[in-house]
Amino acid sequence: MAERFRHVAIVGKHQAPGIQPVLEEIAQFLCSQGLDVSLEADTAQNTGMTGYDALSHDELGRACDLAVVVGGDGTMLGFAREMARYGVPLLGINQGRLGFITDIPIERWRESLAPVLAGDYEVESRAMLEGGVLRDGESIFSGLALNDVVVSRGGTSGMVELKVSVGEQFVANMRADGLIVASPTGSTAYALSAGGPIMHPSIAGWLLAPIAPHTLSNRPIVLPDNGEVRLEIVAGRDASVNFDMQSLASLLHGDTITVRRSQHQVRFLHPQGWSYYATLRRKLRWYL
Amino acid sequence: MAERFRHVAIVGKHQAPGIQPVLEEIAQFLCSQGLDVSLEADTAQNTGMTGYDALSHDELGRACDLAVVVGGDGTMLGFAREMARYGVPLLGINQGRLGFITDIPIERWRESLAPVLAGDYEVESRAMLEGGVLRDGESIFSGLALNDVVVSRGGTSGMVELKVSVGEQFVANMRADGLIVASPTGSTAYALSAGGPIMHPSIAGWLLAPIAPHTLSNRPIVLPDNGEVRLEIVAGRDASVNFDMQSLASLLHGDTITVRRSQHQVRFLHPQGWSYYATLRRKLRWYL
Amino acid sequence: MAERFRHVAIVGKHQAPGIQPVLEEIAQFLCSQGLDVSLEADTAQNTGMTGYDALSHDELGRACDLAVVVGGDGTMLGFAREMARYGVPLLGINQGRLGFITDIPIERWRESLAPVLAGDYEVESRAMLEGGVLRDGESIFSGLALNDVVVSRGGTSGMVELKVSVGEQFVANMRADGLIVASPTGSTAYALSAGGPIMHPSIAGWLLAPIAPHTLSNRPIVLPDNGEVRLEIVAGRDASVNFDMQSLASLLHGDTITVRRSQHQVRFLHPQGWSYYATLRRKLRWYL
Amino acid sequence: MAERFRHVAIVGKHQAPGIQPVLEEIAQFLCSQGLDVSLEADTAQNTGMTGYDALSHDELGRACDLAVVVGGDGTMLGFAREMARYGVPLLGINQGRLGFITDIPIERWRESLAPVLAGDYEVESRAMLEGGVLRDGESIFSGLALNDVVVSRGGTSGMVELKVSVGEQFVANMRADGLIVASPTGSTAYALSAGGPIMHPSIAGWLLAPIAPHTLSNRPIVLPDNGEVRLEIVAGRDASVNFDMQSLASLLHGDTITVRRSQHQVRFLHPQGWSYYATLRRKLRWYL
Repeated sequence: MAERFRHVAIVGKHQAPGIQPVLEEIAQFLCSQGLDVSLEADTAQNTGMTGYDALSHDELGRACDLAVVVGGDGTMLGFAREMARYGVPLLGINQGRLGFITDIPIERWRESLAPVLAGDYEVESRAMLEGGVLRDGESIFSGLALNDVVVSRGGTSGMVELKVSVGEQFVANMRADGLIVASPTGSTAYALSAGGPIMHPSIAGWLLAPIAPHTLSNRPIVLPDNGEVRLEIVAGRDASVNFDMQSLASLLHGDTITVRRSQHQVRFLHPQGWSYYATLRRKLRWYL
Repeated sequence: MAERFRHVAIVGKHQAPGIQPVLEEIAQFLCSQGLDVSLEADTAQNTGMTGYDALSHDELGRACDLAVVVGGDGTMLGFAREMARYGVPLLGINQGRLGFITDIPIERWRESLAPVLAGDYEVESRAMLEGGVLRDGESIFSGLALNDVVVSRGGTSGMVELKVSVGEQFVANMRADGLIVASPTGSTAYALSAGGPIMHPSIAGWLLAPIAPHTLSNRPIVLPDNGEVRLEIVAGRDASVNFDMQSLASLLHGDTITVRRSQHQVRFLHPQGWSYYATLRRKLRWYL
Repeated sequence: MAERFRHVAIVGKHQAPGIQPVLEEIAQFLCSQGLDVSLEADTAQNTGMTGYDALSHDELGRACDLAVVVGGDGTMLGFAREMARYGVPLLGINQGRLGFITDIPIERWRESLAPVLAGDYEVESRAMLEGGVLRDGESIFSGLALNDVVVSRGGTSGMVELKVSVGEQFVANMRADGLIVASPTGSTAYALSAGGPIMHPSIAGWLLAPIAPHTLSNRPIVLPDNGEVRLEIVAGRDASVNFDMQSLASLLHGDTITVRRSQHQVRFLHPQGWSYYATLRRKLRWYL
Repeated sequence: MAERFRHVAIVGKHQAPGIQPVLEEIAQFLCSQGLDVSLEADTAQNTGMTGYDALSHDELGRACDLAVVVGGDGTMLGFAREMARYGVPLLGINQGRLGFITDIPIERWRESLAPVLAGDYEVESRAMLEGGVLRDGESIFSGLALNDVVVSRGGTSGMVELKVSVGEQFVANMRADGLIVASPTGSTAYALSAGGPIMHPSIAGWLLAPIAPHTLSNRPIVLPDNGEVRLEIVAGRDASVNFDMQSLASLLHGDTITVRRSQHQVRFLHPQGWSYYATLRRKLRWYL
């Protein structure tokens, strides 16, 4: 049987106009169900909501056993990454057009939330990428990503050349505008624009997708997720790397970006009957 | 420690001119190493080689613990499929341009083969697809494929429309010239031409790649390999299905192609130091 | 100043349920404006409309100076090809989802048609492909196409190999599921599914787009429209060719498909302010 | 009859090791044929060649009626752009792997050059792009390009959003890593990596190719070359524009990049029998 919740974190995309009343209603509803409710500090401050503890991410992670996120995929992505190390599962309520990972429409928050609290839900785990940048053998940056790690050429410079290896094996030197290492979750984000395939979230692999590659046969590759992926900057000025949106610019030749599977996973909760494929059909308009 | 071999099957692409002397040399070499040698019946008949037992595929499968295949990827593909149920591992010697799965150049057969016989080799397993066609609930065709299962429109008719599902879940209705379900091995074959990614052989997934899809967002999808993939013919005249090259034509509306992971695997042997990525670099000319 | 019309042909997608009343209204409206009205024979017969001359395509072509087509892109395509040699311009009224070339919604037929009759419209010319098949130097088939000429492999056979040349120049031998020679009009049809670009209708060129090409660098090519394109069947069983939907199957090795620019053009009329790019935005959902 | 030459400019990729002796031999050969020879100033200075006038680009353009360029496509591209306004035709001798526009191998410079001097050659014209950047209605940058004009996102920022129009018509707002406006010459350069088609040099059109577009249906478009293409920066920080390699960074919202057909053309000379398609076959390895 599915676990029941005791203490719920509420996070809202606080820049969104008119979000405060809904957050208030959700908080009251959760209290009325006998649950403890805490607000993410930023959400509390920006909405001016009072009457609930305003906690830092770390405090929320330690205290809560469920997070309700109201916003879009971007809000969810950022907060999910923060909660991963604490194992707090997340439920995404979308106030705009439904996203890939925020699939409960705001109009239906109450009828979707109630069964979840009653233990009636599906859990879906998503793998995360972690890694960093090595310069002269020293770590100078580290990051965590739910979507992707992207190495890009500088804005006004030509292609970047990367030496790609996986585990102990050399893959190839690739010249391109950039290289994306995407998780299955990230396969429907930037990597899709770069020509990559969709990867079901249960696939134990990463997608390596070059952006505008110089060699036409440098097609996207699905790599096993059990070896470290290393991308060494061989040529190109002003390259940068992004772990989701955390970035390090001005990479130097010889700098090596490392990417491996994080020991943490994100856990999304969905109403019963949720379907990954239904999300694809809706987002990608697969209607004949 | 790796297993040692006792009885080796030899198969050659018998249509290839001048192949008989090489097969003869290989057979003699194997005998000189104290191994039993049998010939595939077709190879024996077409080359006129005598002095070795000529056995059927079934007999080879039961008797042999190693198969040496001399030819190209096509020859290897066909024989590997036959040996899969018996678990006989295969070593591919290529007489022409090196292939994806036949990676020992014929000029170097002796120096490549000797260490393998001495137990010095790498084993690589490849997943296979099996399935068939259901009509009115009855199985009317079954097949096994190492590369792919392909449903195609008829030659002079328009698109085929397929209802795709995986396990218990509906994926989408897709309209296209055809739909490819490829194994990782098949990802570098037909599916690559259709715009699919390369999949490392260790990935536990299939690639679903539409051919010239009507809906531009019907991108290739990497699906988990633990659920049955079903493709139901919804529209289109004269569609056909191919499991590797075994085909059934004149499919009717309502016919359902099923594809699942075979319990058998193909096992390829490679000289030590073999690298899948080196094969990609060579075949796809990933040189800058 | 734009020409004024005297005699209008009416064509309807007669299979469409409920189309007869609209055709009747349009006919009456045209009469009320002092115009002669004739029906396409099939349309007359299938709708049972009386009171107007029912003419063959040839008779319509000779008698009429405007054709009003009610249906979808398919209906328009077929009739436009028939009228091309007579120079009769066409206006497309769409009863379903708007098409690429039928851009007046049926709800607004009256307010769209009235200004056109008053001489207030834009004319847009579309190039057509014509050609045929040569066997042993003899013509065995000829065709005319507004969208594309497509050579395809047989349903259950492997790739077709074609020797492509343009004018006096050899282009390449290409191995693929098929090869599309598309006009700018056809660039948004089948060729788009095969990975081709969109071509503005004013471009004096054809698109040569291979379907699932064996060689990854066999990318679509925009060819000049002033030389004859020739596609010779070099390998592959049961290949066929389609000029729009007119087809010839069972092509033999050595058969050569020829394609050149027709001396005729299709002329589409549009309400003032019509925009090709607006059509693209709508059909391809280019909304952010 | 083809024109005969009197005064030849010589340009060499002076960074290339060992180029000086060949340039010397070519210069002597030209003198021996009774032609005046001048060196590009940079080439003279860097190779230390003496005995020939060292002229600026402007002086070469005014004085010479032929330019011999020894280097790769990059060298040719840069100098061709400089000579376009003077109408000086160019002949490209390649010292490395043959390029798209430098098609005479250095080993055969003598046998290729002699017939050209005798008037036995083919001329091929290539369209150029010119334009600039408007800020608050003022021109702040202008450029000329033989390959392409590229607007790119900043190195560490997200997508750029551009409002695209052609002539008087709005095309679409596009969100992408960047947008390429390529000439036919440029269609085999960067635009090919971005998924664009090949365009024959005689096509009177530009290719508009988005790089990793957010909307999957934002496919490359072939636009007529007789209207001005305008790209307005709507969103995105630190975007930049490149005309071939001349660039302007730090574009602001509202800045508008304009691109139109230059009145000048580049003229390439080729040995008789030269074929654009043969170049494609060689560069793109269209061998079966």
